[in-house]
Amino acid sequence: MTQNIYDDPTFFAGYSRLGRSTAGLDGAAEWPALRALLPNLTGLRVLDLGCGFGWFCRWARGAGAMQVLGIDVSENMLARARAETDDPAITYRRADLETIDLPSAAFDLAFSSLAFHYLENLERLLSQIHRALVPGGHLVFSAEHPIYTAPRHPGWSNDASGRKVWPVESYLEEGSRTTDWLAKGVVKQHRTFGTYVNMLLRLGFSIRHLDEWSPTDAQIAARPELAEERHRPIFFLLAAQKETHSALQWREGG
Amino acid sequence: MTQNIYDDPTFFAGYSRLGRSTAGLDGAAEWPALRALLPNLTGLRVLDLGCGFGWFCRWARGAGAMQVLGIDVSENMLARARAETDDPAITYRRADLETIDLPSAAFDLAFSSLAFHYLENLERLLSQIHRALVPGGHLVFSAEHPIYTAPRHPGWSNDASGRKVWPVESYLEEGSRTTDWLAKGVVKQHRTFGTYVNMLLRLGFSIRHLDEWSPTDAQIAARPELAEERHRPIFFLLAAQKETHSALQWREGG
Repeated sequence: MTQNIYDDPTFFAGYSRLGRSTAGLDGAAEWPALRALLPNLTGLRVLDLGCGFGWFCRWARGAGAMQVLGIDVSENMLARARAETDDPAITYRRADLETIDLPSAAFDLAFSSLAFHYLENLERLLSQIHRALVPGGHLVFSAEHPIYTAPRHPGWSNDASGRKVWPVESYLEEGSRTTDWLAKGVVKQHRTFGTYVNMLLRLGFSIRHLDEWSPTDAQIAARPELAEERHRPIFFLLAAQKETHSALQWREGG
Repeated sequence: MTQNIYDDPTFFAGYSRLGRSTAGLDGAAEWPALRALLPNLTGLRVLDLGCGFGWFCRWARGAGAMQVLGIDVSENMLARARAETDDPAITYRRADLETIDLPSAAFDLAFSSLAFHYLENLERLLSQIHRALVPGGHLVFSAEHPIYTAPRHPGWSNDASGRKVWPVESYLEEGSRTTDWLAKGVVKQHRTFGTYVNMLLRLGFSIRHLDEWSPTDAQIAARPELAEERHRPIFFLLAAQKETHSALQWREGG
């Protein structure tokens, strides 16, 4: 079972002080790029996997979504999400994304921000998401980038000439990585791009867009510490779509 | 215009001594993985972009291809390809992949091994390939992996604990990289995965498979020096397919 680190008091206290917790979506530097991958939300039924404090759920309603279901394993996060939400079209539900059962063809968009790299059995969840989407339905998610998750002892370094570098090793050795971030012993799963992409294709998604997130020039001007994010991507953002039966047919015949 | 490094005498002499030049496809450790991405070649019209010595062209005929056109910019490589080929269904043509014009809907499979990372204007070539394929036609290629091409001063290093690492920097800064490999001043183009994938999608390809190549256990047992390739991928292999009109329609409506 995936570690529920968000209910660790030290982790939760630290996480609650991050910009993305205090300022919401606008406190997350990758949000404009992630938003750009979303379809028009008007009238859509939206599922948010790893909804945290519910920032995206509330934003989605403001952007026209008809109904939003936010799911998270953390009691702490859901308690704050519920306290900050006053909208009968938004429902929060506590569930472990490793074992969740989703209804069939009930959503037009599945969204997930920075949750998938915690899951041991991602294929099971993606299969549930595929089932939960209508044909042509969208999946838009972000996750930690494989370059960021690969090293067993991650961190910036300087090379012999003093250049800042991100030392990569064990990239092709997938599996658990235990790091210290906000709390000791946070467990994440390293997967290659190939694994993410091929898993989606195998389940019947088509890939629509891949963004290895980079801060914009304007973001670096406003927050110079973001410049180092150009040296190695910390996140990737991916848009996929559940294929229709007819699209699958031409492909299998091709 | 792309550097024609293969007609540099020093480079060509060094390249000619590599396993992939003396032993052909079986001398390239990634070949079994690349071959696994190919469709059944029986009766197909095949295009090989950057055909070099013609190993793949001849193999494709042996695997049932009806016709094969091999294209390369290097006189040296084409001279040897022609000398080693005795098959009227294989044609070699000298052309620069940056400026080539390909016929419309003339091929069922476009193949390219380790050529795309040399091209400055890859989008133009991919657009030509898209035009040259029949609807549903396949594109299978390998290229140097973005993790491998990113650093401006590439090379293995050891971290403070003596672990072998591949220092990455400038990953999100795309463009030329000049390195010394077989000769001084070999110019390659660094592109992110996102750029490769989104370019293909924009042109009307769908992604079928992505393999960030890793040596197998058996390959490492036979050649222990390959073990380091597990630390960072040197190549990626990608299979794509030209979408049919109907597949594009459902997607745009989706």
